[in-house]
Amino acid sequence: MGNREISAVRSVAPDSLLGDVPPEEFREAARRVSDWMADYLRDVGGLPVLPAVRPGAVKRLLPPSPPVGGESLEALLDDFREIILPGITHWNHPSFFGYFSITGSGPGILGEMIAAALNVNAMVWRSSPAATELEGVTMDWLRQLIGLPAGFDGVINDTASHSTLYALAAAREVAYPESHGRGLFGLPPGRIYASDQAHSSVEKAVLTLGFGQAGYRAVPSDGDFRMDVDALRRMLQEDTAAGVRPVAVVATLGTTSTTSVDPVGRIAEVAREFGAWLHVDAAYGGPAAILPEVRESFSGWEEAESIVVNPHKWLFTPVDCSVLYSRRPEILVQAFSIVPEYLRTAEEGEVRNLMDYGVALGRRFRSLKLWFVLRYFGRDGLAANIRAHMDMARELEGWVRSTPGWEIMAPVPFGLVCFRYAPDGTSGEEQDELNQRLLDGLNRSGEAFLTHTRLRGRLTLRLAIGNLKTTRAHVERAWEWLRDAASS
Amino acid sequence: MGNREISAVRSVAPDSLLGDVPPEEFREAARRVSDWMADYLRDVGGLPVLPAVRPGAVKRLLPPSPPVGGESLEALLDDFREIILPGITHWNHPSFFGYFSITGSGPGILGEMIAAALNVNAMVWRSSPAATELEGVTMDWLRQLIGLPAGFDGVINDTASHSTLYALAAAREVAYPESHGRGLFGLPPGRIYASDQAHSSVEKAVLTLGFGQAGYRAVPSDGDFRMDVDALRRMLQEDTAAGVRPVAVVATLGTTSTTSVDPVGRIAEVAREFGAWLHVDAAYGGPAAILPEVRESFSGWEEAESIVVNPHKWLFTPVDCSVLYSRRPEILVQAFSIVPEYLRTAEEGEVRNLMDYGVALGRRFRSLKLWFVLRYFGRDGLAANIRAHMDMARELEGWVRSTPGWEIMAPVPFGLVCFRYAPDGTSGEEQDELNQRLLDGLNRSGEAFLTHTRLRGRLTLRLAIGNLKTTRAHVERAWEWLRDAASS
Repeated sequence: MGNREISAVRSVAPDSLLGDVPPEEFREAARRVSDWMADYLRDVGGLPVLPAVRPGAVKRLLPPSPPVGGESLEALLDDFREIILPGITHWNHPSFFGYFSITGSGPGILGEMIAAALNVNAMVWRSSPAATELEGVTMDWLRQLIGLPAGFDGVINDTASHSTLYALAAAREVAYPESHGRGLFGLPPGRIYASDQAHSSVEKAVLTLGFGQAGYRAVPSDGDFRMDVDALRRMLQEDTAAGVRPVAVVATLGTTSTTSVDPVGRIAEVAREFGAWLHVDAAYGGPAAILPEVRESFSGWEEAESIVVNPHKWLFTPVDCSVLYSRRPEILVQAFSIVPEYLRTAEEGEVRNLMDYGVALGRRFRSLKLWFVLRYFGRDGLAANIRAHMDMARELEGWVRSTPGWEIMAPVPFGLVCFRYAPDGTSGEEQDELNQRLLDGLNRSGEAFLTHTRLRGRLTLRLAIGNLKTTRAHVERAWEWLRDAASS
Repeated sequence: MGNREISAVRSVAPDSLLGDVPPEEFREAARRVSDWMADYLRDVGGLPVLPAVRPGAVKRLLPPSPPVGGESLEALLDDFREIILPGITHWNHPSFFGYFSITGSGPGILGEMIAAALNVNAMVWRSSPAATELEGVTMDWLRQLIGLPAGFDGVINDTASHSTLYALAAAREVAYPESHGRGLFGLPPGRIYASDQAHSSVEKAVLTLGFGQAGYRAVPSDGDFRMDVDALRRMLQEDTAAGVRPVAVVATLGTTSTTSVDPVGRIAEVAREFGAWLHVDAAYGGPAAILPEVRESFSGWEEAESIVVNPHKWLFTPVDCSVLYSRRPEILVQAFSIVPEYLRTAEEGEVRNLMDYGVALGRRFRSLKLWFVLRYFGRDGLAANIRAHMDMARELEGWVRSTPGWEIMAPVPFGLVCFRYAPDGTSGEEQDELNQRLLDGLNRSGEAFLTHTRLRGRLTLRLAIGNLKTTRAHVERAWEWLRDAASS
């Protein structure tokens, strides 16, 4: 990305301290970064997935204080390559199978480039009309793709954690109309329910909203890690009888630990029966609803008051891009809209001001990258790639099932396989140790990256497939590494 | 950006639906976008600042449904240029004087490009060691630049609205230790105090945290729009006597309406006296503390429990980048840390996992762009540019003051001038109309963009200077337009 021989420190006259990088210098640097990006995305499969750095190693290479004089673009791009890159975990690597494997595709990266250059803040319509209107259009396109009925209104937030927080704030607004004025003080306690497999962001939201740990109740899940709806009903009966207000039920379509799918149709019935807001966390699973065969198992999610779907998870959009759909957007606005004079505009009433739908006032132009992704791939391209990931997961499932000493720990509805090595004649503790050793060994090798979870008390390997570069051969290689290491 | 003659629809074999853009095609497109960005940033001053579009105009040009087949990169870049760009408000325009004028500088854009390509999620150390460690380093660099003592620990959030929400959640944790378990139900009411000039995000945070509107008390400000500290003390005395818990006081260094600076040293004394958490909103003013002459007027802010500073406002970093400093980061962690098994890593205890300091689990690699900006400009370059903006604002103030019929409505401590046309012999209502007409006329002309506020009941023009491209000539032209239009 440049040449170390170029002087690192810009020698400048005081006047040239003023202003931005000269346009031609920026053009040159942006082209070099473009080349680097193209090379990186082409060659990332040859890098170790996990960097071989110890805590503190990157920090030690950086000066403890900022420079007094300015430095050249060359110097900082060189240092990026020499100091930062070796400490990066390569989420782009085709053998990155950790957490949820994601892809910030080429069209999405181009969208981020342009959004960074435009640097608009889409807080009110006037502060960037096209950003506000394109957000509306892409939200409607995505709604159609995943088969939600008209009437679901979407806004883009940064993360599912915030989307869920906003949705549950709206739920509180309904369950405690009086709290908008006086707060929760002196009011009867309320609760939010989610399965014991739900994402930690639900509990974070409950704490943030002032309900406390007691305001969260984890509903047991069944043998397939799906919410036990009878248990939910019993809890709601018990709690309402005790004077606890049922604020919301959260159903998850694609849990983080195993991607299990809560029976959302039956949950919707119970929520309605008790007057609780139904929020659906489809952050991971949502994009798969583009496939008709998946949408079927989401049946009932259209009865939810709010649904979160993350294009930055399984829809090839760079982080961050989380969509919050709601059938009752007016409640979100009621919870959050405060318009000071300096943000009033002539168009009020005629337009949507997106700042009114959540906490964040500042809003990046996130719809641009999503628009590029939806157009470049089209419905068929999105579907083909998601289906290919699911096919690879099912193939791995088959390999594991047919190999003695190995077991599948959870159903495989999407692109994640949960499995472990459990040879005959070993105790559960011994098996945990064996799997920990396999996990650490594979991750240390740099050839692939897996994370883990704990299912039925046992350490379980998670292999998540969601990268556009991942092929059957990458999955096979990781599996063979594990199988061979286990048997050696 | 390409050629309309190139077919818009990619004709693809089913197999080529799989995978990302081919690397060479991406390289070519990224180079073209780089050229477009360089041209745009060079020529943006020739575009109308505000687009001449009516609500719905952009939406009408877009298809109501997403494409079934994929489209070419050329087609989407062309549509960006032809449909989206004409509906963009140009925050990069040197005569963009609305809201807070900001700059996403060249080095910052390069940082965003690389961050989009890497697409890492810095939630835990292991998920990207370099991103976590660079965030620590840049936070310490910025702390030194603005003169905060060691012990202030920083993390990057997307917006000041979220930073403030997190800070006030920590304040609640201290004021209501019992609420972490049982929520606010049944507890005595509490309040958060800020001046009547504070940002709407403070009240949004109060509502989100479950305090209700009654949990927010606006302290009157003095003639210079600074918090009246005696009034604050009286309110706290009154409220504590009535059994209301003082949760937090928010002081603002650079309010949005006028950039007034609350007397933070005296506010700190009162907050301490009543045991309230002191949060400082220096989202706008904070970066100016790089200048010794400004830092003086912030004296006392180092006694705050938490401080928010936004590099995306006046530190030349593309949105979004908001820094939350805290002297008590352990309380933030206490409020928010929930670690599910699938996020546990071997390095725990040895490293910081940044997801623990707020609601959002997903975290973009935002420190990269900030690092580039701090290095490219250096301390002296940052200071020179901020000082130049302040000088231009003071010069405009002088022009206004010396022109009969015009008045300055608030002190000018930073880069914002609040002024209005108030010719002799006109009523306040007539003056409001005159200023509204001037504002609308200038904005419609496309030559400059101003926003407004209301001060002492009167419509007031706000001219904010913070763009790296803005020169004295741009400010002069806007001022002359207004002056000439007023007198014609």
